[in-house]
Amino acid sequence: MIELADVLEARDRVAETSRHTPLEYSHTFSAMTGADVHLKQETFQRTGAFKIRGATNRIATLPEADREAGVVTASAGNHAQGVALAATRSGVDAKIVMPADAPIAKVKATRAYGAEVVLDGADYDAAAERAHEIERAEGRYYLHAFDDPMVMAGQGTIGLEILEDLPGVDTVVVPIGGGGLIAGVATAIVGKKPEARVVGVQAEGAATAAESLRRGERVVLESVHTIADGIATRSVGEETFPVIQDRVDEVVTVSDDDVAVALTTLLERGKTLVEGAGAVPLAALLEERFAFAPEETVVPVLSGGNIDMNMLTTVVVRGLAETGRYLRLRTVLQDRPGALEGLVTVLAAEGANIYAIQHDRTSRDVAMDDAEVELDLETRGPDHVEDVVAALEEAGYPVDVMV
Amino acid sequence: MIELADVLEARDRVAETSRHTPLEYSHTFSAMTGADVHLKQETFQRTGAFKIRGATNRIATLPEADREAGVVTASAGNHAQGVALAATRSGVDAKIVMPADAPIAKVKATRAYGAEVVLDGADYDAAAERAHEIERAEGRYYLHAFDDPMVMAGQGTIGLEILEDLPGVDTVVVPIGGGGLIAGVATAIVGKKPEARVVGVQAEGAATAAESLRRGERVVLESVHTIADGIATRSVGEETFPVIQDRVDEVVTVSDDDVAVALTTLLERGKTLVEGAGAVPLAALLEERFAFAPEETVVPVLSGGNIDMNMLTTVVVRGLAETGRYLRLRTVLQDRPGALEGLVTVLAAEGANIYAIQHDRTSRDVAMDDAEVELDLETRGPDHVEDVVAALEEAGYPVDVMV
Repeated sequence: MIELADVLEARDRVAETSRHTPLEYSHTFSAMTGADVHLKQETFQRTGAFKIRGATNRIATLPEADREAGVVTASAGNHAQGVALAATRSGVDAKIVMPADAPIAKVKATRAYGAEVVLDGADYDAAAERAHEIERAEGRYYLHAFDDPMVMAGQGTIGLEILEDLPGVDTVVVPIGGGGLIAGVATAIVGKKPEARVVGVQAEGAATAAESLRRGERVVLESVHTIADGIATRSVGEETFPVIQDRVDEVVTVSDDDVAVALTTLLERGKTLVEGAGAVPLAALLEERFAFAPEETVVPVLSGGNIDMNMLTTVVVRGLAETGRYLRLRTVLQDRPGALEGLVTVLAAEGANIYAIQHDRTSRDVAMDDAEVELDLETRGPDHVEDVVAALEEAGYPVDVMV
Repeated sequence: MIELADVLEARDRVAETSRHTPLEYSHTFSAMTGADVHLKQETFQRTGAFKIRGATNRIATLPEADREAGVVTASAGNHAQGVALAATRSGVDAKIVMPADAPIAKVKATRAYGAEVVLDGADYDAAAERAHEIERAEGRYYLHAFDDPMVMAGQGTIGLEILEDLPGVDTVVVPIGGGGLIAGVATAIVGKKPEARVVGVQAEGAATAAESLRRGERVVLESVHTIADGIATRSVGEETFPVIQDRVDEVVTVSDDDVAVALTTLLERGKTLVEGAGAVPLAALLEERFAFAPEETVVPVLSGGNIDMNMLTTVVVRGLAETGRYLRLRTVLQDRPGALEGLVTVLAAEGANIYAIQHDRTSRDVAMDDAEVELDLETRGPDHVEDVVAALEEAGYPVDVMV
C-alpha cells in the first residue's frame, strides 16, 4: 500500500509538469450549504484535469530501460491527455490507443500534447486490449490510469496542496472512478492530518466502490451508466481498493440530475466549467449526501473540466429543468388564426418567458384540424412550474411536460 | 474630465465591496496569437461583472442627503446587480427599474443583493423614464450606468490592478458600451504608464464609439444589434466620449461570430465563462483586429460573466459551427428501409460523428415518398466540413447547410 512518504516524494516531480491549482473560497456555495466551502480547482490544471500528476510521477520513477522503450496506454479521456503531456515533457515516447469513436476534440488534444494516437476498438476494453498488444510487441511500459502506486502517489499531491493552502480543512470530497485520485488524496490528507476526513463520491450508475465497501470485497459491474463519463469505470482497482478501505471515511452516491444541477450552478454562479466527474463532489455537498456541521471547512475537488461542448448544452438544460428554471412542454391547439395568441396570453399572465416555440400542424399525434405546439419556457422555480402547468390546463390546454 | 487622481482616490472605497480580481497568464491564447496574453478575470468579480466598482465609488462620494434619500437607476443587466450590492454594503437604499421582460435570473439576483426591483417598461428606455419619475417623486439620486465621473473613476480601479500585477503591460483591451469602463481604465493606464496603450472594442452592430471617433462627434444610433447585450448601447456618454478621444489609442469592432468563437474557446480551453461583452476583447485579439508585436504583453479585460444559460447554449453551437467543429445540415432520403443506413455509412467513412438525427417523413418540403433528415454532426474543422458535404453530394444526397 502507498504511504505518505510516496506522495511527499512525488511532489517535486509533479511540479515539473503541473500547476499548483487554486483553492478558492466560494461565497455562493458557502451560503447555499452553511459550510465553509473552498473549491480545489483542478479544472484549471494543465490538460484540464488531474491525470497529468499521476502520469508524471509514474514516468519519472520508471527504470531507464522503460523510459527508453516508451509508454503505452488506452484511454478515451483525461488520462490520454495527461500521459501525452507528461511523456512529452519528460522526453519519453508515448502511444495512446483511443476507441475508434473517441470525440474528435480529445483525439486532437492528445496529438497536440505530443503523443502518437492509435484509433482502434469499439470501446475502452477493446482499446485496452490493443494497447496491451502494443505493450508486448514493442516492449513499452503499460501506464495504467489508476491501479499503480506511483500513479496514486502523483494524484495525492492534490491533497498536499490543499493542506498547504488551507491547514484548517476538515473534509475533502473526492470523485471515485478507478480510485487512483482518492487513494492518493486520502493517503496525503489522513497521513498529515489524521483528524481530517476524506469522503468519496460516485455516480449512482457506477457505484463500484460503494458496493465493494458494503460487501467487503471488490466487485466488478457488468455495465455502468452516468453522464459523468470520467468516472464511468466498471470496478475500482485492486491496488486502490485497500487504500480506500483503510483511509476513506465514507463513500456516497449522486444521481445524474444532481450532477447536472451542480455543474450548471457552478457555471452560472461561479463562472467555472467542470466536467460531470468534476461536479460530483459538489453535487454530494449540495444534496447533503454526507453529514457536515455548520461552518465545517469542506473542500470539493473539482477534478477536471474536459466536457464535450455538445454534452454541456444538454447538461445545462437538464440542470435548469431540474431546478424548475426551464420547462419544455407539449400542448395542442386548434389550428385556426388566434389559437396561438390565446396560449401566449396565458403564459404572459403567469410570467413565464418564452425561449422557443415549435408549431407543427402536420404532427400525426393530433387530430387533423389541431396543431401540436412545443414550448421552451424560462420559469422561476418548481412552484412556478406548477403554476404555469395548472394555468394552461385550467385554460383547456393539455400539457405534456418533457423536461 | 476625470484624472488619475480620481481613480487613485476610488481605490480604497472600491476595495470595501469588490474583489481585486485575478490576472492570469493564458498559455492557450498566447500560443494561439504569439502575444504574451494575460486575462483580467473580472468575470470572477462580485455580482459577476465590473459594475459594482463604479456604483460603489459613486455612492461613497454622494453627499449625506443623497445617501439618506437613496438611489434609483434603470438597468436590464449588470448595472442593476452592481448598484444593488454596492448600495446594500454601503447601507444605502436602492430602487432598480428593470424592463418588464427582464430575464428572471437577473431580477432574482438583483433582489437577492438587497435592492427593491420595479418591473416596468417594454424596453430599457421606458424603464429609464420610469426611474427618472421615481428620482423626481422620491428625491432619490439617479445613479447613471456610465456617464458620471465617479462611476468612471470606480471602473478605472481595474487599470490600477492590472498595473500592480503586471507592470510590464503593453496593451490593455477593453469593451465599450457606454464607455464608462474604458474611460476609467484608460485614465488609470495612460496616467500611470504613458507608453502603454488602451484599445477599445465594440460589437459591429453597436459601433457607437468607433463611428463617433471617425466623425469627431458623438453619434446616437437608431438601433443596435449584437449578442453582446452588455454593450448594446445606442451611444457613448457625453462625459465618457472626450475621455475616449483623449486617452484611447484606437477603437475596433468584431462580429457576433467572432464573439461566439472567443466565448466558446475560452470556455472549452480556459474553463472560464464570460458573457458576450466580456468576450469582445478576446475576439479582437484572436481576429487580429488591432496590430500587436510578437510577445507583446496584451491584457484583454473579461468584463463580466453574466450570460443567460439559454443564450449560452446558442452561442456555443454558433462558436463550434464557426470553427468547423459542428455541422447542422438537412438532406432528403427516399422513405424506404435502409435509406438512412446508406447516409450513415457515408458519414462514418468521412469520420463525422453524429450528435443527433431528426427524421421527418411528414415534412411538406419534400415529395410524398421522401423523408427529410436533419443531422447534427461533430467535425474536425473547416476542411472536414467541406469533405463531408462533398461526400454526401457525390453519393446523391442534396445538402442544405443550416449552421
